[in-house]
Amino acid sequence: MTKDPLVIFTPSGKRGNFPVGTPILTAARQLGVDLDSVCGGRGICSKCQIAPSFGQFSKHGVTVADDALSEWNSVEQRYDDIRGLAKGRRLGCQAKVQKDVVIDVPETSQVHKQVVRKRAEARDITLNPTTRLYYVEVEEPDMHDPSGDLERLIVALRRDWDLPDLEADLTVLKALQPALRKGQWKVTCAVHLGDDTFAPRIMQVWPGYFEGAIYGLAVDLGSTTIATHLCDLHSGEVVASSGIMNPQIRFGEDLMSRVSYSMMNASGAVEMTTAVQEGMNALFTQIASEAQIDRNQIMDAVFVCNPVMHHLFLGIDPFELGQAPFALATSESLSLRAIELNLNIHPAARIYILPCIAGHVGADAAAVALSEAPDKSEDLVLVVDVGTNAEILLGNKDKVLACSSPTGPAFEGAQISSGQRAAPGAIERVEIDPVTKLPRFKVIGSDLWSDDPDFAKETASTGVTGICGSGIIEMVAEMRMAGIVDAPGLIGTAEQTGSPNCFTDGRTQSYLVHDGTATGGPKITVTNRDIREIQMAKAALYSGARLLMDKFGVDNVDRIVLAGAFGAHISPKHAMVLGMIPDAPLDKVTSAGNAAGTGARIALLNRDARAEIEDTVHKIHKIETAIEPRFQEHFVNASAIPNAVEPFPILNSIVTLPTATHNTGGGGEDGGRRRRRRG
Amino acid sequence: MTKDPLVIFTPSGKRGNFPVGTPILTAARQLGVDLDSVCGGRGICSKCQIAPSFGQFSKHGVTVADDALSEWNSVEQRYDDIRGLAKGRRLGCQAKVQKDVVIDVPETSQVHKQVVRKRAEARDITLNPTTRLYYVEVEEPDMHDPSGDLERLIVALRRDWDLPDLEADLTVLKALQPALRKGQWKVTCAVHLGDDTFAPRIMQVWPGYFEGAIYGLAVDLGSTTIATHLCDLHSGEVVASSGIMNPQIRFGEDLMSRVSYSMMNASGAVEMTTAVQEGMNALFTQIASEAQIDRNQIMDAVFVCNPVMHHLFLGIDPFELGQAPFALATSESLSLRAIELNLNIHPAARIYILPCIAGHVGADAAAVALSEAPDKSEDLVLVVDVGTNAEILLGNKDKVLACSSPTGPAFEGAQISSGQRAAPGAIERVEIDPVTKLPRFKVIGSDLWSDDPDFAKETASTGVTGICGSGIIEMVAEMRMAGIVDAPGLIGTAEQTGSPNCFTDGRTQSYLVHDGTATGGPKITVTNRDIREIQMAKAALYSGARLLMDKFGVDNVDRIVLAGAFGAHISPKHAMVLGMIPDAPLDKVTSAGNAAGTGARIALLNRDARAEIEDTVHKIHKIETAIEPRFQEHFVNASAIPNAVEPFPILNSIVTLPTATHNTGGGGEDGGRRRRRRG
Repeated sequence: MTKDPLVIFTPSGKRGNFPVGTPILTAARQLGVDLDSVCGGRGICSKCQIAPSFGQFSKHGVTVADDALSEWNSVEQRYDDIRGLAKGRRLGCQAKVQKDVVIDVPETSQVHKQVVRKRAEARDITLNPTTRLYYVEVEEPDMHDPSGDLERLIVALRRDWDLPDLEADLTVLKALQPALRKGQWKVTCAVHLGDDTFAPRIMQVWPGYFEGAIYGLAVDLGSTTIATHLCDLHSGEVVASSGIMNPQIRFGEDLMSRVSYSMMNASGAVEMTTAVQEGMNALFTQIASEAQIDRNQIMDAVFVCNPVMHHLFLGIDPFELGQAPFALATSESLSLRAIELNLNIHPAARIYILPCIAGHVGADAAAVALSEAPDKSEDLVLVVDVGTNAEILLGNKDKVLACSSPTGPAFEGAQISSGQRAAPGAIERVEIDPVTKLPRFKVIGSDLWSDDPDFAKETASTGVTGICGSGIIEMVAEMRMAGIVDAPGLIGTAEQTGSPNCFTDGRTQSYLVHDGTATGGPKITVTNRDIREIQMAKAALYSGARLLMDKFGVDNVDRIVLAGAFGAHISPKHAMVLGMIPDAPLDKVTSAGNAAGTGARIALLNRDARAEIEDTVHKIHKIETAIEPRFQEHFVNASAIPNAVEPFPILNSIVTLPTATHNTGGGGEDGGRRRRRRG
Repeated sequence: MTKDPLVIFTPSGKRGNFPVGTPILTAARQLGVDLDSVCGGRGICSKCQIAPSFGQFSKHGVTVADDALSEWNSVEQRYDDIRGLAKGRRLGCQAKVQKDVVIDVPETSQVHKQVVRKRAEARDITLNPTTRLYYVEVEEPDMHDPSGDLERLIVALRRDWDLPDLEADLTVLKALQPALRKGQWKVTCAVHLGDDTFAPRIMQVWPGYFEGAIYGLAVDLGSTTIATHLCDLHSGEVVASSGIMNPQIRFGEDLMSRVSYSMMNASGAVEMTTAVQEGMNALFTQIASEAQIDRNQIMDAVFVCNPVMHHLFLGIDPFELGQAPFALATSESLSLRAIELNLNIHPAARIYILPCIAGHVGADAAAVALSEAPDKSEDLVLVVDVGTNAEILLGNKDKVLACSSPTGPAFEGAQISSGQRAAPGAIERVEIDPVTKLPRFKVIGSDLWSDDPDFAKETASTGVTGICGSGIIEMVAEMRMAGIVDAPGLIGTAEQTGSPNCFTDGRTQSYLVHDGTATGGPKITVTNRDIREIQMAKAALYSGARLLMDKFGVDNVDRIVLAGAFGAHISPKHAMVLGMIPDAPLDKVTSAGNAAGTGARIALLNRDARAEIEDTVHKIHKIETAIEPRFQEHFVNASAIPNAVEPFPILNSIVTLPTATHNTGGGGEDGGRRRRRRG
């Protein structure tokens, strides 16, 4: 007896002998090779495309003849005619083994394909969504052996796809019988594979093979903005991204004022819940329309948010989060039906909310942990998610600590006299000439510096409207480097600083950045009160990080990751001059962009990641800054620029900061030591 | 070392030695003695009452001293002062072991107490509800070890009650934090213990110890009436029973006309779903008000119904049930949230619908099987649920067969010229004098026969208004015994029958039962068309039963159980004269009352019964009468009274039926052989 032909799959290297006539898809399944299929090998879905290789393969010890596979057949021809099949590709369910063959499974034909992340240091996402499509052919009803249409569908799904006993939503039951008959007992099912809360279940049934795609949302519900990615659940691709302002802003800019609103208004929490749910729905409508899909094709959604937003989104009064001991109503992850939160996506959609780490360290911090994986880091990494509250993680594969720190909205341009949100016309980059002590800057929407002759022309439409968060950080750091602001945070007089732009402004000095009044624009200045706001914000951030370093027993970290949409725009050097972050080599300070949003996307695309982060969160040690005596001490020290006690040797090797002080013993302090309330 | 005192529990006989000071509740738990407690031994709930016995117990080999238990304590005294504790009773959590003791656990103190059923042959119901109350004390939040309030509650429930990891509904999350604080970290939880669909979950949280009770509904959703029992889920008692007409009647009296309505009106199925759900809610409001409880205390509900009602209740178009192969959308049991069906009971309530056996044999038949347990019967039992459709079960512990047969509404008094529903004034019992051939009768609302001198006076308020279902059966059987109707079902002339009450009525003869016209009442007659209706109904019933006997390979059954509200009123002798049921000893024909409703109650009170009936239903062999050639033959034979071919030897040993025929070769048949359509 001659041996059956050998089939070798690349890149997995899996191999086995199969009888002549075995479809490649069948061989792949038997060997556990990750080859996709939605239609179960019926030549409909084209997901099982493979690329046979021919010729001699000394590495594998085989020679592949030109007729190693069965001939191109009519099913493949029909698919090629209608959709086009790339050169060299075959359908794995149609091509059958004839002789020894080497089969390459392209990335796009893998079920658990890798979704590549842009950043070099980030892990790719393994695609393994909770909701998937399955095509099946169902037995017709038999009066001699009566069973429900649903039960026969479940049998077919178990037989062809090895799915467990499934439940079905009532909406599926209502639509099932017409769908089966219209599809002549062939249907495509969207199946939620289940979790701790929900049994595996059929979410929708389409007659025949469903040509469309199903989608999921990764939502980062922030205090200020709601950002979402719409992802194709089969390919893992982000097909659209969009964001809106959180409509709760009208109830209070920071979280604490929203908690207060709920305490002072009987229906306050309900109003805010309604507002955020409505905002969410408006965003979903917008993103679906942008991607030209039906909102009902959105069958999964993952949410990350801070604890207050978490409670307000769920309709839980955040009262307890406003006072010690900051008890969460629930800290574990949640699986809910989208309709429970009045979300207008697929009526059977289930949503997943990541676990919270503690009363001040929310699901957004958990998402950052999932995305940046400090728990898998060999070196000691400090991850800072910069926002209205800063969430801070410090750790390595041995241990991870977490805390949050109430930076307030100054880093977002709020509570700064000329501050504004990042928008065209906002100053985002600043340089102060060390000799003239005069500023130049760039605004969002233009690449030119303000001293460029064409600057006025190019910014005519936007104007120069204010200073955004990253702009104010550079501004204060530049003022410090130029000696306009001293270490304690006092702006000097024109005389003390040698800058003509310093001017007396009430009891303190201010610094003129840009006077646009001649062209009808604002006069943009930095007041000493602005400096105080930034000092408090950065001191809160630094002292949180420093507290975690104390707890970890270290004085240095190996690297720093700045997360948050805002973190992407911070200049590491300026952040360090300001003393926002601990002293570290500048090339070890990187930005992770919206890591919370990325964490949400990971949890959306990979159900295993949900279990992983639930487990990780249990292992993270939570530090409550409010009850740590050293926090206050660190905060006071960190109010100085960069710091009253920390030496910052690496920073000092790069820049030399003036040591002059502008304090002449008179008044001028305006409460910079106030401890900011949480928000 | 002296041995620890011996504690003996009765009636279980379980015994063990326990250190002095062990509470009796603790001893019971350690020995696995079924002793109830809701508060977990905190002296609050009083569910753990026990009765210590004193003196010499030679049977157990112990002598119990008067001081065998610790002294009556202040907790017991307080409870006794407020609520009263029966003489000789102690609280099991307070009374502590001092010396050898014998402890009786009264039935009312058992968790899995038996709910006694009235019928001698019926099994008692073991109480084991799906939803129960648990009292716990929860750890307060700790900033050093942050966790959600829910998570600490779940830990407490696991620690004190050995409950699995629980989920919580969003409504619970919303109410949890205030409840914990109001109850000073002591709360009572209603917990749904979970099933295939729902993970175990907390349904409601009350501050402190909840003094109220929680209830469940057992609902028999019939084509004509909706009947429900409200049960206390802790005691198992039926606290109220109520029923209403099914509001769907306005869309059609029988099921088939409702299916037609849905086929001919685009929104027909939706209208009928809304009608039945609204009717249900009206009924629930009524029964809650009757029992003086809040509808929100109803936390569980079990439904049984035929397949068409099943689909209409769920909002599934019953279209497929109207035509071969009579495919159900789903046949398995269903667990749903009450709000999915718009039911106004507790918002977190889960409902359970028993499985259907086949396209014509519904969850009501499954409930009858649960109540009457033919699968556990040693002898061969025929169970007939008599209604608009008859559900028929035949079997013993080896095998059970099931079918349904379309009897139509004649047995309910519909489609009978003088027919009416069972209500005061309706004739329910009949006797025809063998000599005078004149009838006498009783009406609902009076115990007097119509030939009693006081009859007219006693029935003056109700009148004599018509003939109800059981009345028409007796009537036709009596007419057959008196020779007024012959075996083929033809009413003879006054001449042929010797009865002055026979009169020519168009082309056929009718029989006058009562002429109330003199007092403004109706003239009540039985027409030959009425006889035909009854013949068809009873032939359908008999031929279904006979078909199952064929399939079982028997010509006789050991006993017959008549189920259905109507079954309770059928006279076995008359039913047999009519040939409705197979020949059997009269004392082996019993009534089970509303067995479907009882089955619903069993499934409500005992979650194990749900699994049991799901399993049983899988094992029942379904026979579809529509495709059985012999059904038609049995039907034709069974149209004769009692039967054209079956000998009925037991019946013939009791009554002698006249053999005369009234057919003189002329017309007079009016379509009695029409096969009734289903409904």
